[in-house]
Amino acid sequence: MVAKSELKLIRSLHQKKYRTREGLFLAEGVKLVGELLGAGMEAYSLYSTDPGEFPGAREISENDLKKASALVQPNKVIGVFRIPDPVSLSLDGWALALDGVRDPGNLGTIIRLCDWFGIPELLCSPDTVDCYNPKVLQATMGSVARVRIAYQPLPETLDACGLPVYGASMDGSPVGSGTAVQPGILVMGSESHGLSGAVRDRLSQTWAIPAYGQAESLNVATATAILLYEIRRQAGPVTQK
Amino acid sequence: MVAKSELKLIRSLHQKKYRTREGLFLAEGVKLVGELLGAGMEAYSLYSTDPGEFPGAREISENDLKKASALVQPNKVIGVFRIPDPVSLSLDGWALALDGVRDPGNLGTIIRLCDWFGIPELLCSPDTVDCYNPKVLQATMGSVARVRIAYQPLPETLDACGLPVYGASMDGSPVGSGTAVQPGILVMGSESHGLSGAVRDRLSQTWAIPAYGQAESLNVATATAILLYEIRRQAGPVTQK
Repeated sequence: MVAKSELKLIRSLHQKKYRTREGLFLAEGVKLVGELLGAGMEAYSLYSTDPGEFPGAREISENDLKKASALVQPNKVIGVFRIPDPVSLSLDGWALALDGVRDPGNLGTIIRLCDWFGIPELLCSPDTVDCYNPKVLQATMGSVARVRIAYQPLPETLDACGLPVYGASMDGSPVGSGTAVQPGILVMGSESHGLSGAVRDRLSQTWAIPAYGQAESLNVATATAILLYEIRRQAGPVTQK
Repeated sequence: MVAKSELKLIRSLHQKKYRTREGLFLAEGVKLVGELLGAGMEAYSLYSTDPGEFPGAREISENDLKKASALVQPNKVIGVFRIPDPVSLSLDGWALALDGVRDPGNLGTIIRLCDWFGIPELLCSPDTVDCYNPKVLQATMGSVARVRIAYQPLPETLDACGLPVYGASMDGSPVGSGTAVQPGILVMGSESHGLSGAVRDRLSQTWAIPAYGQAESLNVATATAILLYEIRRQAGPVTQK
């Protein structure tokens, strides 16, 4: 039996202001909760409809799970975790930066891409969607536990790091044309406005993905996928997982 | 004033069985409806909260638009269109095939990618999500009007076309290693099961996207983005839109 006050706390964590106030976030599903625990993240409380599966989980009824969940189809387990202390990024090799990405699904997919392509650090502008948003976490498939993420103003951070800054933009030069590329920070713009003026002023190079048809644009997550693939392709011999 | 029976018809088109029965589908938003009309698709009825914007549109109240819409935030215009007659694919150059892709957002993003990379034909297995699903249409950003899409059993169609068949799979050879590639059909598998056995039996080559980190998999839409980019990159000189 889960108390009403607990359910209320869990539900409040669907919203950023309560996550910030409580210093807690919500993760759902066997896979995601398992990945976070496996990565050493600190669970505040765990609930499962089948508590035998998760050491330390308390039983929750299907009905209460539905009430607590941010998902259309809740999946057995719900965990309340402590938001880790802010990390400080080292920014001493390839990193990705996001300039105002607002869609939770896009951010989650991008975190998963960083994990796939071995990009250890993700710098987010303060107006980028919160990485502890339940929809972001769901889309990361657990990769959120393996990528260091920090929210900092981009202009100052880019100035301080001393690395080349590469921007993705429709008006850039086509990637993949064989230019040797030094490690740096790739910045992707927001879904509706692209890169901000302050970031554009700091670009060493601007890259475009060549188009062969009539679509006006690419989704920011698919564009990120292509550019991270291309960076890794140019950087050296292809190795397999 | 929109009659209750009309609202009921529109709402019924959120579901595939009524789309099939009526031969109609729903498109929402100024951009999508405009793109479909621009591509010559036949409107059955158009509604707008600001009918001056759309010739032939009837006025609909904000309240009725909310009732009719499949979106969380309805966007001024809603159109009922006739489902075009099934197209027959020529399959005489690069084409994409989907083997049981179920997520509407993924299919919509993939249709947009075909449009971007100039892949004119998309072959879908019968168990792939319906391309006239409102969430698919929304994610296509209008590209659905520029890509020929057909639902046909993959094994027979692949056998009949006489082209090489390439499959994406984690256990394939790394793409981008410089193999010259003949035009053919790239098949992407479902989110949960990958490629079906009947498709695997027909593959000329199996491609994997090299991994550099610890993520277990890539989303099917981001994987498609990378492979279509790679096909175009290998096929010839980089040209810009």
